[in-house]
Parts: sequence; C-alpha cells; structure tokens
Amino acid sequence: MRPVARETLSGFAADLGGTKIAAARIEGGAVAERLQTATDGAADPDAQVEAIGALLDRLGHRHGAPLGVAVAGRVDAAGCWHAVNRGILAAIDAVPLGEKLGRAFGGGTALNDADSAALAEGLFGAGRESDSFAYLTVSTGVGGGLVLGNRLISSGNGMAGHVGFVSSRHASGPCGSGRRGTVESIAGGRAIAAAAAAAGQDVADARAVFAAADAGASWAERIVDASAGAVATLIGDLAAILGTDTVALGGSIGLAPGYLDRVGHALGAEPALFRPRLVPAALGHDAPLIGALAARLGKDTT
Amino acid sequence: MRPVARETLSGFAADLGGTKIAAARIEGGAVAERLQTATDGAADPDAQVEAIGALLDRLGHRHGAPLGVAVAGRVDAAGCWHAVNRGILAAIDAVPLGEKLGRAFGGGTALNDADSAALAEGLFGAGRESDSFAYLTVSTGVGGGLVLGNRLISSGNGMAGHVGFVSSRHASGPCGSGRRGTVESIAGGRAIAAAAAAAGQDVADARAVFAAADAGASWAERIVDASAGAVATLIGDLAAILGTDTVALGGSIGLAPGYLDRVGHALGAEPALFRPRLVPAALGHDAPLIGALAARLGKDTT
Repeated sequence: MRPVARETLSGFAADLGGTKIAAARIEGGAVAERLQTATDGAADPDAQVEAIGALLDRLGHRHGAPLGVAVAGRVDAAGCWHAVNRGILAAIDAVPLGEKLGRAFGGGTALNDADSAALAEGLFGAGRESDSFAYLTVSTGVGGGLVLGNRLISSGNGMAGHVGFVSSRHASGPCGSGRRGTVESIAGGRAIAAAAAAAGQDVADARAVFAAADAGASWAERIVDASAGAVATLIGDLAAILGTDTVALGGSIGLAPGYLDRVGHALGAEPALFRPRLVPAALGHDAPLIGALAARLGKDTT
Repeated sequence: MRPVARETLSGFAADLGGTKIAAARIEGGAVAERLQTATDGAADPDAQVEAIGALLDRLGHRHGAPLGVAVAGRVDAAGCWHAVNRGILAAIDAVPLGEKLGRAFGGGTALNDADSAALAEGLFGAGRESDSFAYLTVSTGVGGGLVLGNRLISSGNGMAGHVGFVSSRHASGPCGSGRRGTVESIAGGRAIAAAAAAAGQDVADARAVFAAADAGASWAERIVDASAGAVATLIGDLAAILGTDTVALGGSIGLAPGYLDRVGHALGAEPALFRPRLVPAALGHDAPLIGALAARLGKDTT
C-alpha cells in the first residue's frame, strides 16, 4: 500500500459499525456529501452490503468507481471479514467481503474501521508529521491502528492494530476478544459503565461517569483515571515495541474533555523514550471514510 | 530496506555486546570465518571501534568492503548509538557510530543486535515462511525484533523491537529501561537470579535456577514459569498489535531445554488469534552477524 496525496483522493467510502452505516462521496480528499443510516445488527452480510449500496446509490456511485469500506472486525488478506469482539456483529464469520464488494459495486477494498481511521490520521491528520504513528480510539471498546513510514501495518489475519486487546497490568476482567485483563476491559466505555455499577453507582453509561468525574466525584475520578492509566501504559508499550513518536487519541472517550490530559498526566511517569507526543485525533468521524478510500487508492498504485 | 537473497550475502559483520565482540567474514550467506574477543566495558567508543577493526583486519576486510555492525543498545536514524539498558555499555551516549564506521572502514550499517538477529531469522531462519514475524531473545535481558513482509520494523529513535521493555501484568520490579514491571524485569536471567536470591536460595545465576527446576525444585519451577508466563503474555500482546503469525525464541534462556515448552503451555491459555506458531530460533549466534550484513546490503539496494 503506497501513500496517496490527499488532493488526489476522489471516490466513495463506507463505514459499517455496530450502530450505524455511514457513506460518503469524497472529492479532493474531503467529504463532499455524507449519508448515514442505523445498522441492523441482525441483518445477514448480503443485507449489510445492500444497505451500503442504498447509500452509495444516493451519493451517485457507479459500478467500478473507487470504493473503500471500513468495517468493525478484522478483514484478512483474502478479503474475508470476521467478528473479533463477541459483543459486536457477532454473526459475521468468514464473510468473503472483497468478493461481495466486487459483485455489488465493481470493486472495493475492505479493512478494519480503526485501521482506516489510523491511515487517514497518519497520512493527512494528527500523524502527518510522524514516522511512527499510533492512533488509539477509546469509545465503547478500544481499537487502533499503526502507520509506520506512511504505511498502515497490516497482517494476513487482519488482526494488526487491535491494540485494545493488549494485556494490561491495570486490568483483570473479561474482554470481548476472549483474553482477560486487556486494555479494553478496563479503559473502554463498556468497562467504565460496568466499574460504576460494580461500585454501586446508579449511572446509565460511561458518559454519566465522566459527568460525575467532572463534578469532582472521587469514585468517578478513580474509574476514569484507571482507564486513562491503562491507555498511558499501552502507549508506553507501543513506544517500546515500535518506537512510536506520535499517538493520537480518538473516539468518544478519547476526545472527551479532560481525558487526554489525564492520559498525559499518567504518561508523565514514563521515562522519556516511552513518552511519545500525545495529540487529539484531527479528522473526526470522517477519518474511517477518508482512510478506507486512501487504502483503496494506495492499493491501486502498488 | 529491501530483502536480499541469502546466497548473494557476502561481506563482513561484527557484533558488539556487553561481554564479547564477534566478527565474521560471510560468504554466500554463511559465516566462513568467525573471530571473537572480550568486550572492554570501560573502553570509549573509539576503542570499541578499534577492537572491531582488529578483528576485521584478521578476517581480511578492506576499506569499503560491505560491513554490518550489530550493537547492544539503540541506533537512531542518524546512525547515533545510545545505551538503553542502564546495566549494559552505560557509557555509550549519542555516539555517531555511522560516521565512525565510515571513517574507520569506509562505510558500515549499524543496528541493534536483537534487530539484526530478528532480520536474519525473519529472512533466512525460523521466520522465513512468515509474513508477520517476531524474534524474542531471552538471556540476561529480554530483547527482540519484528519483521513484517520481509522488512525489519525500525523507528527514528532506534527503539523499535525493544519488546523486553513492554509492561507485564506478571511483574512489578525495576527494569534497566527505567520503566517498572516490564517483561525483562521478571523474565530475564538477571531477574531470575534475583528472584532466587529473594526466595532465600543460594544460587549463582539463572543457569543454577534452571538446573534446580529441571531437578523438580518447586521454588525454581515457580520462578522459571513466571518468566515463561510473562513471555507468553508478551507473545499474545504482539499478536494483538501486529497480527504476528510466528514467534521464534532465542537467547540462552529462550533456547534452554524445556523453556519453549513452558512458554507454549502458558500460551495455550490464550484464544487462538493470540497464539502464533512458536518455534526455536534457527541461526544460533551467527544470526546478528548475518542480519547486520543483510541490513547493510538491503540498504544499499533501496
């Protein structure tokens, strides 16, 4: 996959997540038009592809036009799509997504949504000056992607970048990956809400825990700081493994007010070599769309 | 850095570690002649380069002949050499090694010794069939290197591959990296000997702990299993981050009888996606020499 210049990036993209499907027409590297619909979690893969198709039709996509598709889960080197996290799109198992995109749309590159966002941020956003960039998205779960020398790190099994499934000294509970004690199992929104419930607090979700922490409730600050501490240790681990120079935080929790500062504070305890530059993600919800098309066009030039 | 065919690999290599300096003449991808001397830990960088030169002279090296040099510590993108682990070659700080090799030998590529070994194993040894390969060396400390798609993962600061400095849920003690609770701080030979001393055992070194474990002493088995368990979790973490399909264990502990089986047993508790193929390193003490020359020749063709 070779990097593409942002201004040459024109075509279509879709982003299929656990709660919504977004699609966009991209012109000159920017989203010109964007449509969104709710994901039907019970739909089979063909129905998911049809739902993407309905959006693409409205955006003016024609058979064979450049198309990148970001999906939750892993996409292996054969273009097969698999659920990884048991809580999300659990019915997706070895779906030949590359083939389906070819039949339905005349071609299309599929990749993991966090990898897509990482590629966009690495090439055009928060990591554009970086040689060794990590994007971390902290929302319901924790995901990410790695861009080294303007190339997205990928692997045959499609697992590369699933950094939320790294083990954490801060954690001990179950994780949707099947591992125990992962970063996601303490730092993600699901984990934050569960920790609040375990602490006997009557809160609806992670958002409410953040509101309580902002209001100075010590039980809530402890939970949010545990999340931030686990993310900081993960950042130090990525620096050890990859020599990461820049880390961007995205996702609803990653970009929640004050969260990046808490991560930065925890990271301050690491020696200098394990403390990359920490910045907010820059491209917002367009990142997976732009990255998916960049992956498509980068592949075309390989 | 592009991969080179093994049979085209001819030239010279050196490997400067904390206890010994090795040098070799390499012909057709194999070590044709090898010399070794003890490292003078108190020597300044110029004296270290002279010591390498004395061996290279005896091997028939002429000014400008292809030369790769593997060193303990990190070598940044500018060719500057830095100690990372405070216990080893602590006087080495921002030494312009690339320049010194150029002046002394008419050129030479320097890189981390575990990275060198990883590159050799990844191209020609235990990882030659792998698309996403990790080499782990477990000896006094724990190091490693990563080869993805036949390319060594490197970073501007030279840290990439220092996987022994990843945090470990199994550990809490100090590490030469300045971090706390790393894999090295529980899995390396220094840590194993320290754990035995802390357990009140009168043993000289990690080798004695292994002998006691082989003889069935439960205190020793606990210490060795703690090391193997931390390495297994690290392997699962690398699989999450990089989609690793093959891991090779090297080093005096990594290749100690029974150790790989203990790591494999601990790895058996991981879900399938986090359980890459586990194999012994194949190239022995020639690996850093062969890898350093491969890095040199790969660079020449970029």
